[in-house]
Amino acid sequence: MNAEILAVGSELLLGQITNTNARFISSQLSELGINVFYHTVVGDNAQRLEQAIEVAESRADLIIFSGGLGPTKDDLTKETIARHLGVSLEFDEVALTYIEQFFAKRGRPMTENNRKQALILAGSEVLANHHGMAPGMILTKNDRTYILLPGPPKELEPMFQFEAKPKLAAMLNDGGIIASHVMRFYGIGEAELEVRVQSILDAQTNPTVAPLASDGEVTLRVTAKAATEQQAQQLIAAKVAEIQALVGEYQYGVDDDSLASKTVEMLLDNKLTIAAAESLTAGLFQSELAEIPGVGNALIGGIVTYAADAKVKQLGISQELIDTHGVVSSECAAAMASAVREKFSTNIGIGLTGEAGPTAHDHQPVGTVWIGIAIEDEEPLTYLLHLSGMRNTNRLRAVKFTCHYLMQLLEERGYTKRYR
Amino acid sequence: MNAEILAVGSELLLGQITNTNARFISSQLSELGINVFYHTVVGDNAQRLEQAIEVAESRADLIIFSGGLGPTKDDLTKETIARHLGVSLEFDEVALTYIEQFFAKRGRPMTENNRKQALILAGSEVLANHHGMAPGMILTKNDRTYILLPGPPKELEPMFQFEAKPKLAAMLNDGGIIASHVMRFYGIGEAELEVRVQSILDAQTNPTVAPLASDGEVTLRVTAKAATEQQAQQLIAAKVAEIQALVGEYQYGVDDDSLASKTVEMLLDNKLTIAAAESLTAGLFQSELAEIPGVGNALIGGIVTYAADAKVKQLGISQELIDTHGVVSSECAAAMASAVREKFSTNIGIGLTGEAGPTAHDHQPVGTVWIGIAIEDEEPLTYLLHLSGMRNTNRLRAVKFTCHYLMQLLEERGYTKRYR
Repeated sequence: MNAEILAVGSELLLGQITNTNARFISSQLSELGINVFYHTVVGDNAQRLEQAIEVAESRADLIIFSGGLGPTKDDLTKETIARHLGVSLEFDEVALTYIEQFFAKRGRPMTENNRKQALILAGSEVLANHHGMAPGMILTKNDRTYILLPGPPKELEPMFQFEAKPKLAAMLNDGGIIASHVMRFYGIGEAELEVRVQSILDAQTNPTVAPLASDGEVTLRVTAKAATEQQAQQLIAAKVAEIQALVGEYQYGVDDDSLASKTVEMLLDNKLTIAAAESLTAGLFQSELAEIPGVGNALIGGIVTYAADAKVKQLGISQELIDTHGVVSSECAAAMASAVREKFSTNIGIGLTGEAGPTAHDHQPVGTVWIGIAIEDEEPLTYLLHLSGMRNTNRLRAVKFTCHYLMQLLEERGYTKRYR
Repeated sequence: MNAEILAVGSELLLGQITNTNARFISSQLSELGINVFYHTVVGDNAQRLEQAIEVAESRADLIIFSGGLGPTKDDLTKETIARHLGVSLEFDEVALTYIEQFFAKRGRPMTENNRKQALILAGSEVLANHHGMAPGMILTKNDRTYILLPGPPKELEPMFQFEAKPKLAAMLNDGGIIASHVMRFYGIGEAELEVRVQSILDAQTNPTVAPLASDGEVTLRVTAKAATEQQAQQLIAAKVAEIQALVGEYQYGVDDDSLASKTVEMLLDNKLTIAAAESLTAGLFQSELAEIPGVGNALIGGIVTYAADAKVKQLGISQELIDTHGVVSSECAAAMASAVREKFSTNIGIGLTGEAGPTAHDHQPVGTVWIGIAIEDEEPLTYLLHLSGMRNTNRLRAVKFTCHYLMQLLEERGYTKRYR
């Protein structure tokens, strides 16, 4: 099966947004072993879109469209494909009801163009959209398969992964399958990790091992091809063991894990409660933990002390400590961690203070961050970071390092950590 | 002049990297007033590349290639174009010397492959590469212009901007320029906004008006074509005024503004201080404000009361209020806003409480959010949201609505808001 990915949207051709959907769909298709030979982007223009469809039909038997399913005048993907294939558009009752409820809920008026979003190609199978209003669809005609997906990545990615991908996998007749497993590392640079696993990278055949770095994290994607899922998983497990023998101490999770999700998991598994006092991160640490459902049993709350003054008034940090050591100091981070832990009566207290940038305020260079971690019945520990990113990269890195150090500390103290 | 951007590289089709070059080149071309009708991505395969070139020649008179100029055997852009156009490849002495010096400097042996990088299309003009070894080139043949650029963005972007763009500008006989302005709206759906400005969308010629929706926000991009920058800006200003007459009350900013940046700007302009008590958002509101440099003069801090209990202990909300109305209630949001404002002695206090999901805890449906806003010397006001997104979309939407309502309130009270 050879695929072409056809993105529709003038905003792409104007350079307003990047076609990240093509990358996402391509990586998903490669996991299925489907070859992608071309990506095409065309604007919101029926005639040029139809020409692009004809070109795609001349060189692919799977055509995946992204974008142009919205309610507005320039959304014409469905209409153009319908005309091109000579199939009609009909209302999908499920989608229509979903859209009506969407507006009823918000008490917003529903316009005729919103109804238009519930139109689907006759004979197509609907791909449910759980994050927006435009349903996707999959249609096979003249031995060619057409998949229509909405443009916003938040809608397209889950729809492809959970609705379209399984249908494609079923359509592939060569029983061979491709399974893939992502190992997530923190606290080690990409270059250093690659050097450590060089022998494995050089010798790779099946499974393949692909390193990727982003947001200060490094991942290794282990991909195996086999006749059955079970055989593929055995190949992956063996390779993962080899890798862990070399750099296991830096692995924090797998697949869709995040540092925050693993931290929350570890807190919940061990029935530990946590509170945080945040300066430069201004609530980002707590907010990242709060992204994980169920966190309520671990995260009690905390205090944002953005103004230096608030550290004294709200946390009871002594003015003398601040005068002596400054707010960006080991002493202040430790005091913040201890104070917030006591104030919220939790097992763990976190203190975050530093210079996010762009300008420094406390005689410390931009990028200086002190992390304080106070564990019940122990002296608080502190960690120093020298970050070199922009303001908000530094704030996020500070949060990630906090999760990383906290998990290390808890593991050293014998608290259970899940490995999969 | 109509352009097609043709990226060459299997790593793009495997989904290993995103085609950011197409976005960059497109935005650069739109500044020149050159229409881009298609982007194409093809792998490192001579036959498919030549087919893609034929397709591009059938629909564009400017074809810009990115990638495939490297030293390895996968790099075959030059060779394929040379064969396709029937022109020879010859060594460029300047490029060759540059490459030789590069290796001499590093005392590394120079291979035959590296020499190959100095080969250029006969009759083409070289585009110097100041950040890598592969020279770019520009060639006009049969009334069609071909531009070859290296794949790495750090080489491609400066080469296009400083080498290719001036040559293109010179080729364009009409000195016309394109200017564009983005209007940002909140609190109105894309479809509804379109209906309101339908007359403008239908009548558009120059400037053009393009709607785009993302993350609950809607933008209108107004793009004008004119002989001079000043004329273009006049056309834009007139169109913007027309649009504001219809939906101005929903516009919060322009271009790169965000709801958070405009909120911070308004707080700083009016010397107002703010504190927040956050439940479902768990610090996200404060963290979003803290993304903006200089916020320290407005954001004093706040309290995250994730556990119901923390609302009582840390904010002094009466247990009776919670027992009577629940934590997800207008009364609780108002009390949180007032309490945190007093506790931090600020002009404004924000209270955020709700059910982010996936499961409800307080007899309220998931997506129910109460926002409390307490302004000094006033009774707190509250706002009810019914959100239908996933947990973290709901949390972010709650923050955006808070900024939206706060700015509305402050404007009603006569505080200055900047419009550009």
